[in-house]
Amino acid sequence: MAEIVVGPRVRKSPFYDAVVACGVSSVSIYNHMFLPISYGDLLAEYERLTSAVVLWDVAAQRQVEISGPQATELAQLVSARRLVDLRPGRARYAPMCDQRGCLINDPVALRLAEDRWWFSLADSDMLHWISAVGASAGLDAEVFEPDVSPLALQGPRAEAVARDLFGAEITESIGFFGHRPVELDGIPMQLSRSGWSRQGGFEMFLTDGSRGIELWDKVMCAGEPYGIGPGGPHPMERIESGLLSYGADTDADTDPIEAGLAAFVALDDDTEFIGKQALLARQADPQNRRKLVNLVFDAAVPNAENPWPMTRKARPAGECRAAVWSPKLGCHIGLGLVGAAHSQPGTTFEVHAPDGSAAATLSATPFGVSL
Amino acid sequence: MAEIVVGPRVRKSPFYDAVVACGVSSVSIYNHMFLPISYGDLLAEYERLTSAVVLWDVAAQRQVEISGPQATELAQLVSARRLVDLRPGRARYAPMCDQRGCLINDPVALRLAEDRWWFSLADSDMLHWISAVGASAGLDAEVFEPDVSPLALQGPRAEAVARDLFGAEITESIGFFGHRPVELDGIPMQLSRSGWSRQGGFEMFLTDGSRGIELWDKVMCAGEPYGIGPGGPHPMERIESGLLSYGADTDADTDPIEAGLAAFVALDDDTEFIGKQALLARQADPQNRRKLVNLVFDAAVPNAENPWPMTRKARPAGECRAAVWSPKLGCHIGLGLVGAAHSQPGTTFEVHAPDGSAAATLSATPFGVSL
Repeated sequence: MAEIVVGPRVRKSPFYDAVVACGVSSVSIYNHMFLPISYGDLLAEYERLTSAVVLWDVAAQRQVEISGPQATELAQLVSARRLVDLRPGRARYAPMCDQRGCLINDPVALRLAEDRWWFSLADSDMLHWISAVGASAGLDAEVFEPDVSPLALQGPRAEAVARDLFGAEITESIGFFGHRPVELDGIPMQLSRSGWSRQGGFEMFLTDGSRGIELWDKVMCAGEPYGIGPGGPHPMERIESGLLSYGADTDADTDPIEAGLAAFVALDDDTEFIGKQALLARQADPQNRRKLVNLVFDAAVPNAENPWPMTRKARPAGECRAAVWSPKLGCHIGLGLVGAAHSQPGTTFEVHAPDGSAAATLSATPFGVSL
Repeated sequence: MAEIVVGPRVRKSPFYDAVVACGVSSVSIYNHMFLPISYGDLLAEYERLTSAVVLWDVAAQRQVEISGPQATELAQLVSARRLVDLRPGRARYAPMCDQRGCLINDPVALRLAEDRWWFSLADSDMLHWISAVGASAGLDAEVFEPDVSPLALQGPRAEAVARDLFGAEITESIGFFGHRPVELDGIPMQLSRSGWSRQGGFEMFLTDGSRGIELWDKVMCAGEPYGIGPGGPHPMERIESGLLSYGADTDADTDPIEAGLAAFVALDDDTEFIGKQALLARQADPQNRRKLVNLVFDAAVPNAENPWPMTRKARPAGECRAAVWSPKLGCHIGLGLVGAAHSQPGTTFEVHAPDGSAAATLSATPFGVSL
């Protein structure tokens, strides 16, 4: 469409100069920071992610830190998932809801210590919201954005690169969604086995923004024997793998159950969080329920730039929120936010893309991946 | 730097197709929506803004509507400026502070009726924040993002275009920061004498997003005899004119007094708003005060892509937050956020731009414009 404007309003990550030197060709803005998406060949980047290893500047996953005597009370109040029993050194994917029970972010919550948390955010200003919630509730906790910038190493060979960088003793001590503080030649970070793909790997939560280029270069160097290259969160892989993109797959009125996140919402126990009562009330109203579903197209469609209307037997059925080519399945796939009445596998829809309609069939969730 | 990615996560304005058809060449993202900045010739766009008339898609100034029995209480609570005495049909520039007294947005507040307000936002998610504040305070008010998309007509000939479109009776009935509902061939909007330049003009707050292209085309057509062209909020004119860019000129710890907005903050009366006590306490601590000041460079400097360090006699003095060529002054100018001890007109600084240092002198605020 056009060049992105570079100016002081949009923040640059600590890896920015390296990203530019690597030839970044398309970017977005996420949490008021540039987010590199591609370096010119999305299919090659997919191939590298699924068969080798890629390095992503995901510093735009900004962190909100909550610390202090009542940090855990506040972390729980703003999270729809039960967190109070999470052990330090562990992380959980923890959706956030507003008072209406609608999704306003879907961060990963990392517990660093009994009284210290990070929320690794999707694209919305939760710093202000969490601060307001904490102040209103009179909770004794500090809420701020720390100097933390995630750099993601993803792909089947990420393990080998991390082992060469940090040593097997460290990497093997970290289970899935585990994390621990480490240093790499004096560069401090929290090393976490996590990331926004299902190809395995680590996120290096750099805790000294002045050392981003050093870290980037060291990882690139260590990854060379394994075929590393730069990339970004991948629109094809994430849909194949059933990973939610908050704000893309969801609209302002989507609740976490509609978004397929029921397993990550504590509705059935005594956990208290903002939006819980509203969410229970929404569920009791089956009339207006929707569901985020996987779609397989029977023909080529353009990448979805907009939500497209969906119909079933010529009657409105929902919206197609995303459409991409799937290298794994060899066809076009997408995501639809459809009325719950239309959410049976095998249901067929007409999807009204700008260049004409295409038929799409509802597929099991997610595309052949077991969660 | 790179192309901007177009996908469903970032919203398109109702004017998007027209903007693309007009050849937009550089864009940013603002409130999760594309914000067109330039159509390829920033100097020609400056010339048109200051001597004729331009049309800006500023739908990314998203609105938060507050309505209901206690709407005014909530509007006041979230605004550092006194609003309770604002009459319906009038607007005020009204900074917002968090609990620390720091600036988190600087919207224009439009009072539509006794119990109905819009906040025309800068770039941060105040919808979530205001919702949380309202819910915590137990105020009976709805908070939501309405279907409202501002389109700005700016420049000395904007008046003539608006008169041809709406009739002199309507345009002359609207004073500065006044607004009223009007229709243009059935297209509904709130017409306001406002906009983010000091060249005069109107903002058309379109209230039916399905009619954006129609509105754009009608205005372009009416503006043709007056030399209208497309443009965007202009980085040169706004600095010459002393208009704040929240998030560019300010960092996470800037309060409205530091940002030069003392005239828009109700510290001296009984107005109650979030952050007031913290703001009073900050003012009582002169040690750490800063001030946003105008700078005139003695040499050419690149456009500021980052805040640059500033020194005075080789000691740290602050940050240069913006630097541009000024067509009006015929030199490079900028904005510095400097220690209050360094805020006397005539003070000279060294500004450390990436390509070398330049000297800059503090100029009176703003550059020859009377507020």
